[in-house]
Amino acid sequence: MRWNGWGDPAKAKDLPLAVRSLLPLLLGRIRKPEPSVELSAVRVAASALTDADLTAFRAAVGLQNVDDSDQARIRHAGGRSTPDLLRRRQAEQDAPDAVIRPADHDEVRACLEVAVARGVAVIPFGGGTSVVGALDPERGRHHAVVSLDLRRLSGLIRFDEISGEAVLAAGTTGPEAEALLAAHGFELGHYPQSFRYATVGGFAAARSSGQNSAGNGRFDTMVTGIRVATPTGDIELGRSPGSAAGPDLVRVFLGSEGIFGVITEVRVRVHPIPRDRVFESWSFPDFASGAEALRRVAQQGDGPTVIRLSDEAETAVSLAQVGRIGKALAKGASVVTVYEGDGIVERRARASAHLVAAGGISAGEGAAEEWLKGRFDGPYLRDSLLDAGVFCETLETATTWSNLQPLRAAVERALKDGFGDAGAKSYVMCHVSHIYPTGASLYFTVLAGVRADPLGVWAPVKARVNNAIIAAGGTISHHHAVGRDHAAWLGEEIGETGIRILAAIKRELDPSGILNPGAVIPLERTR
Amino acid sequence: MRWNGWGDPAKAKDLPLAVRSLLPLLLGRIRKPEPSVELSAVRVAASALTDADLTAFRAAVGLQNVDDSDQARIRHAGGRSTPDLLRRRQAEQDAPDAVIRPADHDEVRACLEVAVARGVAVIPFGGGTSVVGALDPERGRHHAVVSLDLRRLSGLIRFDEISGEAVLAAGTTGPEAEALLAAHGFELGHYPQSFRYATVGGFAAARSSGQNSAGNGRFDTMVTGIRVATPTGDIELGRSPGSAAGPDLVRVFLGSEGIFGVITEVRVRVHPIPRDRVFESWSFPDFASGAEALRRVAQQGDGPTVIRLSDEAETAVSLAQVGRIGKALAKGASVVTVYEGDGIVERRARASAHLVAAGGISAGEGAAEEWLKGRFDGPYLRDSLLDAGVFCETLETATTWSNLQPLRAAVERALKDGFGDAGAKSYVMCHVSHIYPTGASLYFTVLAGVRADPLGVWAPVKARVNNAIIAAGGTISHHHAVGRDHAAWLGEEIGETGIRILAAIKRELDPSGILNPGAVIPLERTR
Repeated sequence: MRWNGWGDPAKAKDLPLAVRSLLPLLLGRIRKPEPSVELSAVRVAASALTDADLTAFRAAVGLQNVDDSDQARIRHAGGRSTPDLLRRRQAEQDAPDAVIRPADHDEVRACLEVAVARGVAVIPFGGGTSVVGALDPERGRHHAVVSLDLRRLSGLIRFDEISGEAVLAAGTTGPEAEALLAAHGFELGHYPQSFRYATVGGFAAARSSGQNSAGNGRFDTMVTGIRVATPTGDIELGRSPGSAAGPDLVRVFLGSEGIFGVITEVRVRVHPIPRDRVFESWSFPDFASGAEALRRVAQQGDGPTVIRLSDEAETAVSLAQVGRIGKALAKGASVVTVYEGDGIVERRARASAHLVAAGGISAGEGAAEEWLKGRFDGPYLRDSLLDAGVFCETLETATTWSNLQPLRAAVERALKDGFGDAGAKSYVMCHVSHIYPTGASLYFTVLAGVRADPLGVWAPVKARVNNAIIAAGGTISHHHAVGRDHAAWLGEEIGETGIRILAAIKRELDPSGILNPGAVIPLERTR
Repeated sequence: MRWNGWGDPAKAKDLPLAVRSLLPLLLGRIRKPEPSVELSAVRVAASALTDADLTAFRAAVGLQNVDDSDQARIRHAGGRSTPDLLRRRQAEQDAPDAVIRPADHDEVRACLEVAVARGVAVIPFGGGTSVVGALDPERGRHHAVVSLDLRRLSGLIRFDEISGEAVLAAGTTGPEAEALLAAHGFELGHYPQSFRYATVGGFAAARSSGQNSAGNGRFDTMVTGIRVATPTGDIELGRSPGSAAGPDLVRVFLGSEGIFGVITEVRVRVHPIPRDRVFESWSFPDFASGAEALRRVAQQGDGPTVIRLSDEAETAVSLAQVGRIGKALAKGASVVTVYEGDGIVERRARASAHLVAAGGISAGEGAAEEWLKGRFDGPYLRDSLLDAGVFCETLETATTWSNLQPLRAAVERALKDGFGDAGAKSYVMCHVSHIYPTGASLYFTVLAGVRADPLGVWAPVKARVNNAIIAAGGTISHHHAVGRDHAAWLGEEIGETGIRILAAIKRELDPSGILNPGAVIPLERTR
């Protein structure tokens, strides 16, 4: 992973010409920023770990797995939100005091024991793809903070073909997990945009949702069990596919982002690799009719594996991006569908009937296949935009079908007004990529012509959006999680009693508050 | 509801002749017990509530909604497990000190405030159908205990046709909920055996699963939001169908059986009433081949709305019960399937292919239709058996597909050996009625020829079964919940860390421990 951008440096690409020529029309004159700082030129404070701290961590994981080099520290200094990437462009950066790489569950527990004994904060680190500040090197009340890099916890621990269940070590990345399962003819089928780098433990800790969620469900629904090391004891949960043995405590750890414990193993539902795949894209007169089509498909049940609706603004730019503004697709809102698995013919026929009834016109396979090819490449494009001086960020929410349009309008207004107040033109795109019987997600991409101090300009816009989401009845996050960026708003969503529940669990499991201080729950609520 | 048995007294029925003649063959000589005590003859201790307590509760809910008559107290003295019913046959009984009937969320909150202020324990009471001791009048460390009867919280609070969501008051019973939704052309489609009496809040509090779970999911999966009054604050959860805004706290309250707060409203996913319904029953050579068929159907996805497999023992007795031991069905294991909703033809074709491949032979509509007619009547039969001197109880667990046979064998062995050690012959039947991609439930019915002291004989058998379930990797409850009867085993399932999490939430929300003392978590763990 590029230390200051997304993914494989070899895959970085220039902005397509069509986009490059479109940007000034949308955002006004763009000023190219200073070139990004080199990794070797970044200055970080000296590690605050004492020799005794280092000795204790080395005893837990071995000498070579405690790395307090500047380079390792900077590479674990944050996630991959736009503010993260903008901070990576600065000459002075915050960083954890060391990177610790445990090999397995027992070493994770040993690391937590050291951290408690030495008073060192711990930031669990999987693929490093958080976009909500969950990886910020926050020390809390402790004298130092380490990044607990979990990628050595990799592998298929158990595979049960009869039950369609696998236990994966938490640091297994998306591609590693799929390769291990493919050897048995199975797949997980979970494809968030971070798929190539993010880990199974991260999917669980952040309540990830993947592009195949219409068919395979969000990651929450795939998890059948979990093993966690907490500072005060281990826990292993998930004996059966359905249970009434008290509240489902697996759900306490899904979405906990490392504040209660470190997930070391994840038990997941898997299924045979589907043999067939069918693509079809559709064109709708507008977002509203497209959303109505998706609602019908979601409420009908068993339909496409992937279904995505881009609004008019995203449809136009996506088409510019792939360089083919065809007549059939130039206007309106586009929908991509992919069908995998059993019963494709019937499922497609039923879904297509709903799509047609809501005003959709089939546009063949092409656009859907192209979407599939480029589906993990969005973050590369963001790097190119940032390099060109265009502010680009994404955010997401979800709500009921009946509240979808008001929520979309409220977020769009908050983004446009927020940038407008800062004197910046912006272009807001939206898509629906996760559907449920009762509602859907809304995913926004905003481009803005921010002349200076993009971090300073974005912070109040982001706050305004969060306030708008809460006021309009949406959730503060559909699949990016809370981290530190949303922590101040979580109480608006789950109420004071909800925060008290989380803080009580935190106090019980992590009484010294070493785990990911300030993530999910504001720091002052866990003291 | 009969005060000392199940349901509508008018529907009580004698044992079918075929069953009556079968019982001595299975269980040996049966001795008819003493006739059951009359309600008016039951002795309970005088109410321990003080005049000041009563005055405070009356101020909260109105004079007429505080009932400390012996009759009301005895009617709220417990649930409907076999031990409950055996206790109802005794001359002296424990009972709550009064029955309090709040009208709405605010009155529930007011009751909790009174209970905290006066030091009175509170047992939330919905339909009164718990079979795990969740309604025992346990005072904990308090001087008195009241039953908080929630059936006045009844009605459809909001209905969102577009989103397919309804908000129901927690005391709404199954039939009331379906009638309210049917007025809009919708249904919930949740049919546990307790359906006619149990409440929506009870379904949520106990993590109920209904007979249509193959199609509609367990109640857990229908709940999209919840409103709860706790002794230290209200909470309202569930803004969106999918979220990554921290752990899903709705799941903290599902399965909490009133120990954290009183559920006052439940938001649920609903769907249009299906137009079509198709029945088909099947015969399999044995339980193993039937279970293999169900596994294939579950892992295929979208299949029947109802699917149930009875083992050889249950198949034989069920057939005796309906008086038709036909040639095709007399042996082996029977499967009932019901299909409702969209795409029945394709779904049935796909499921049937799996059933045939696993060795199933179609046996027409008859048995499946008969099952549907009698599906809520099992508890009436138990009353008749108890009246005839036959001990009869049910219990359930669940596990992965690969562990299904070992778990079934372990439970059956524990039941037979347990009764055998007490010198009683027993007959154990098992069915699978809830299937998941990764596993299934196992539901046992045991009949035993217990000569004397059935409560004393059953307690160690039940303990032995629970130990066997834990040792064999099953869950202590698939859909009956924990109550007090399973509380001692919950720690075996979720571990010490799991119990600590529940106790921490309990201390935070209910620091004075007034709510359902001893349910879910053993009493000594919440002091």
